Amino acid sequence: MNIYLAGPEVFAANADELGNRKKELCQRYGYQGIFPLDTQIDNAATKQLTGLAISKANEELIRKCDLVIANLTPFRGASADVGTVYELGLARGLGKPIHGYTNDPDLYHSRLIALFGADDLQPEGQLRDRDGLKIEEFDLRDNLMIDGGIHACSGHFIAAQKKAAIYETAAFEEVLIRLSR
Amino acid sequence: MNIYLAGPEVFAANADELGNRKKELCQRYGYQGIFPLDTQIDNAATKQLTGLAISKANEELIRKCDLVIANLTPFRGASADVGTVYELGLARGLGKPIHGYTNDPDLYHSRLIALFGADDLQPEGQLRDRDGLKIEEFDLRDNLMIDGGIHACSGHFIAAQKKAAIYETAAFEEVLIRLSR
Repeated sequence: MNIYLAGPEVFAANADELGNRKKELCQRYGYQGIFPLDTQIDNAATKQLTGLAISKANEELIRKCDLVIANLTPFRGASADVGTVYELGLARGLGKPIHGYTNDPDLYHSRLIALFGADDLQPEGQLRDRDGLKIEEFDLRDNLMIDGGIHACSGHFIAAQKKAAIYETAAFEEVLIRLSR
Repeated sequence: MNIYLAGPEVFAANADELGNRKKELCQRYGYQGIFPLDTQIDNAATKQLTGLAISKANEELIRKCDLVIANLTPFRGASADVGTVYELGLARGLGKPIHGYTNDPDLYHSRLIALFGADDLQPEGQLRDRDGLKIEEFDLRDNLMIDGGIHACSGHFIAAQKKAAIYETAAFEEVLIRLSR
């Protein structure tokens, strides 16, 4: 079983090291991990073409994998990394089981309130941020499409019990443990 | 032809009005627009179950549509709304044509630098933000998975020529014009 390791690890200075660590954990539970950077992409004629070639290679890795485990820890904002979320949706559309984890135990609405503010006088169920935009109040971990997609295929979505750095792997390992049961 | 109208319009106070405006534009070009809020969801026993039911209904609308046009204007950060991005990936996995537009003409890397900082002394091609995280330098409009997915199915990704509010529809209409040619 091949697991595509979606997540913002690719943006870290030690991306390869982080990928290898997750692959070793996969192996320990009888899986083979596939990291987005596994395909070497040479620079193309333009930056745009290089970026598009990386996207194409990642889509191909996802089409070949058996399932996805996504690092959905909030990244540069209240939500998971958008590239990771695109990949999660893609895998769901392809009919692959999708799983996720987050190193932030807080629920989505508390992160939205912390980052974008909400008027204390608003009644529950009708919270809006300071720009008047709806705050999702569904006691979920992120935007409902993310939680919902994982739930719809009976996937695991594990949250760390204590807030941990974005590249910590305890919650990731917990997904592997549940998968291997 | 049914077009699923993905986008953060659902978070606006006048969401239904915004949806109707986009549907009218669709009709003008011979399409039928499907808005995420078209399915009425009753409150379930818990907030979580309500959120998951909305996700399920949206996934069903996407499975039934012929194509997707996503409002990919940056939302609460440097990137498009994650729910919208999940839907874009889902549609791509389902083999539907995906298209997008953004009301922000700036490229992704300039938004990342503006929001998360980058050291001026770093060489081009190796930019990192103030947390040491890679800044994508591919002259694309958002994370490369988004631009890449649209490009891979020969979709349109239109950017407004001048920065416009998130719910403006000129760039959206431009996608419709190109589709109807």
